[in-house]
Amino acid sequence: MLKTKMPAIGIDLGGTKIMATTVNSEGIIDDPIKIPTPKGPENIIGQFLELIEHFKKNHIVAGIGIATAGIVDGSTGTIMGATGNVPGWTGTPVKRIIESKTLLPTYVVNDANAAVYAEAHTRKLRDLKCVVALTIGTGIGGGILVNGELLQGANWGAGHCGHVKISMDNKRLCTCGLFDCYEAYASGTGLATTAREILSNISADQSPLAKDINNLKNSDIFEAADKNDIVAKQIITLWHKHLVAGMVSIAHILNPNCFVLSGGLSKVIDYEMLFELLVDSTMPAISENVKIYRSDLGDHAGIIGAAQLILDKLAKPSA
Amino acid sequence: MLKTKMPAIGIDLGGTKIMATTVNSEGIIDDPIKIPTPKGPENIIGQFLELIEHFKKNHIVAGIGIATAGIVDGSTGTIMGATGNVPGWTGTPVKRIIESKTLLPTYVVNDANAAVYAEAHTRKLRDLKCVVALTIGTGIGGGILVNGELLQGANWGAGHCGHVKISMDNKRLCTCGLFDCYEAYASGTGLATTAREILSNISADQSPLAKDINNLKNSDIFEAADKNDIVAKQIITLWHKHLVAGMVSIAHILNPNCFVLSGGLSKVIDYEMLFELLVDSTMPAISENVKIYRSDLGDHAGIIGAAQLILDKLAKPSA
Repeated sequence: MLKTKMPAIGIDLGGTKIMATTVNSEGIIDDPIKIPTPKGPENIIGQFLELIEHFKKNHIVAGIGIATAGIVDGSTGTIMGATGNVPGWTGTPVKRIIESKTLLPTYVVNDANAAVYAEAHTRKLRDLKCVVALTIGTGIGGGILVNGELLQGANWGAGHCGHVKISMDNKRLCTCGLFDCYEAYASGTGLATTAREILSNISADQSPLAKDINNLKNSDIFEAADKNDIVAKQIITLWHKHLVAGMVSIAHILNPNCFVLSGGLSKVIDYEMLFELLVDSTMPAISENVKIYRSDLGDHAGIIGAAQLILDKLAKPSA
Repeated sequence: MLKTKMPAIGIDLGGTKIMATTVNSEGIIDDPIKIPTPKGPENIIGQFLELIEHFKKNHIVAGIGIATAGIVDGSTGTIMGATGNVPGWTGTPVKRIIESKTLLPTYVVNDANAAVYAEAHTRKLRDLKCVVALTIGTGIGGGILVNGELLQGANWGAGHCGHVKISMDNKRLCTCGLFDCYEAYASGTGLATTAREILSNISADQSPLAKDINNLKNSDIFEAADKNDIVAKQIITLWHKHLVAGMVSIAHILNPNCFVLSGGLSKVIDYEMLFELLVDSTMPAISENVKIYRSDLGDHAGIIGAAQLILDKLAKPSA
């Protein structure tokens, strides 16, 4: 019982930075430390161990939770694949190494799965039938919680919501190599592609955005819309339709109680418009009572979720 | 313990017929009885009670499982909606009425959910992480099993796989009132629509199918393809691409171990082509080891699944 009151160390490995801090059931304890992601699995593991030593100086730690990009085998804590952002990481038996070096119980989890767990824990949504978290950034990540437990799938690959197929056009090639993926339209990258497509047929008289489309940033579109640029507004409306297209399929398959949206682009979504489009495009039995929340955990979702997962596993070892 | 060895009565209510028989863990015991579906909830319930009395004459029955079209509240056994095929059925507290009249424990379940349960039980797939059953008929129904348990969703509406959005064209209106649903393309109705679209631009010299497109039956297309009609073959290939489009989204969201396909159209699918298209259109981590099975339970999936559900609930009351 005592163990569950101790904090865990949460670590979040991204392509550019590693973030770590101590977490208990109330949330983050210490200010998170951010360091650049070193090259190669040995150096990453070395950095993890240094961070763990650092936090152990001031805390009696119950365990370690590690959120990472890529597919993770939840039973062995080994990285199984799809981690282009962290070269060489696939195949690393992260849990086995960290446990043998620290003698602390460790849980390794995909970062989108950590995020949905953090959202559900923080918002007290874990008693709900189904919670879907979508990270709308450069790409689109997803995590799914069913009755408070992470949906894993046959090969630990459930929740690849960015690769829902929303068209049969074969026009947009996704970074994964497939055509017509949700993220090829609704991610930040997809929004930029949509903007370039529309602006390439428009003169600078119609919208100043058309002047230099090769150097266009997504923030330029939102700034122009704020200044009543009608073309910018149309681009943003179309982006919301793309955002909804994937949510419609997720909603009819899972009938979730709610979506929680995070990631850089989640800050610029018009939630009222998104909700209306979702209700208009789903069967009433499915959209009845569905909620869309904007995450307020920011960068911290991964560390909170990973740490909370190991704390919960220590409290209920059978789970 | 004894109770689990007794059979249950399985009843399957469809828009045109009611089917019922006794079932134990090995499968169907008696030859199923089929009778036309009467009009109105009172008459349907009356028919259920007659069928139950009939089977009780020769069996000591443990419970009753009822599969029905529409969304069912699994906790109360009340019909919640979306049952256009059975007018007036919505709102009927089926479990409460049947239990009070027969004093037998009763479980009421959506027919697609009963079907996935039957497939998983019969094929011994219940230990798998995720099994998806799709019924490809006039429409497309779906049922999802996660770790051997039915996925329910917030409003008992999970598994509406026929309404996955596979296009943003706004060209095909589904019977549900939405555009671009999977079933508007990949169901029997969708296939017929695709055929008419293609054949309306073709002369009868190119394909005899173009002669009388208003009276075209789907079976005509498959017969023509067997006789090497190139247009018929193209229509069938396109239909397989439509079939895969929805499966791709389901696969990336759920990462299932397998799909089990049933319904009238499942008999004419080219499973080799379907599998190749699925692998070509999904991430390797998702399609790795995925299987596609053709159901061999035929019409009996609903009664077997519903009966097995009540048998399992009696054996493990906490589940």
